[in-house]
Amino acid sequence: MRISQLAAATGVPVATVKYYLREGLLHEGERTAPTQALYDDSHVARLRLVRALLGAGGVSIAQARAILAAIDEPPAAIHLLATAHNAITAPLDAAADVDEVRAITSGWGWRTESCDPAVLGAVAAGLQGLRDGGFDLAPGVLDAYGRAARDIAQAEIDGIPTESAEAAVRYVVLGTVLVEPLLLALRRLAEQVVSGERFGETGPLGD
Amino acid sequence: MRISQLAAATGVPVATVKYYLREGLLHEGERTAPTQALYDDSHVARLRLVRALLGAGGVSIAQARAILAAIDEPPAAIHLLATAHNAITAPLDAAADVDEVRAITSGWGWRTESCDPAVLGAVAAGLQGLRDGGFDLAPGVLDAYGRAARDIAQAEIDGIPTESAEAAVRYVVLGTVLVEPLLLALRRLAEQVVSGERFGETGPLGD
Repeated sequence: MRISQLAAATGVPVATVKYYLREGLLHEGERTAPTQALYDDSHVARLRLVRALLGAGGVSIAQARAILAAIDEPPAAIHLLATAHNAITAPLDAAADVDEVRAITSGWGWRTESCDPAVLGAVAAGLQGLRDGGFDLAPGVLDAYGRAARDIAQAEIDGIPTESAEAAVRYVVLGTVLVEPLLLALRRLAEQVVSGERFGETGPLGD
Repeated sequence: MRISQLAAATGVPVATVKYYLREGLLHEGERTAPTQALYDDSHVARLRLVRALLGAGGVSIAQARAILAAIDEPPAAIHLLATAHNAITAPLDAAADVDEVRAITSGWGWRTESCDPAVLGAVAAGLQGLRDGGFDLAPGVLDAYGRAARDIAQAEIDGIPTESAEAAVRYVVLGTVLVEPLLLALRRLAEQVVSGERFGETGPLGD
């Protein structure tokens, strides 16, 4: 198909398609004349992924380029996740106490040897944030977080599409970025539901 | 104790204590002279809470004032949570489809009649975000999120301190704001762990 047909098929304006071509986010078509090229279904699929990444995914052009490079040379699953997570995670804080995270999670039976250090660091930063705020988790709560995170991951990994690297990466990146607000809102709602069950209208303080 | 002793006991500079008094975040002491007042343990506790809210909690002066007002006239547990959540939640989006959220969660056995509409709206916005991004959750994944959120809430509500409204609100607000980055990081780590277990080093795409 021509570039105008590619644009029509994906709803992406021609000027934007050209911009993605220049930025290396979309592979060149088959050149049929100095100013003309033909595109195929691989371009349609790639364009859809690029739009999802830059739009709802909220990643930058440079981050999208890194993710697309990972697709073109598909890494092992764990590296696919790491690449996707890396593109949307702050770089590892040197002060992050990753050893503490490894110790806690290995107590849960998690094998973290091959995990991305930046994500281990993000967990360490989360724990440090609690300490900085003078906030102690009640006994057993951290273990409950670990169990819940694993239950979530189990359901999510079961759902990873395996028909193509595009589909898998799209699922992982969007599933991380788009789902986070939903998960946090569900937690707040569940807190209100459970509090209502536990204390009724009287409140935890009796009153 | 005098204001200087209150400052020393809490590590909050005298000028800041005076600022909180002016802003109504801290109740007046017992006046012993036109320029002198005496403070007690209730001021120490309140100052610690104010610092936690404004610092790690990341709430504004106005939000802190709303939370403190809720403490001074302690509402029922569910309203305590709602007040705390409200102070840190975006206002309800009029377009949010709260009915869909009520339908889904009542399928899980959640009773949401008394829940804060803004939090129901945040869940609705989360679901809408998935649709806008063209992202479909694999079958059963949303149910897994609901189960995980409930497990988390159950452990957290068990841990709510009941000795004072200050302690309860501090726990709820800081527990919401400070714990969120930790939960999200744990989910990402769990995804990598489960992916490693499921696919090993070969990746979900075989090869």
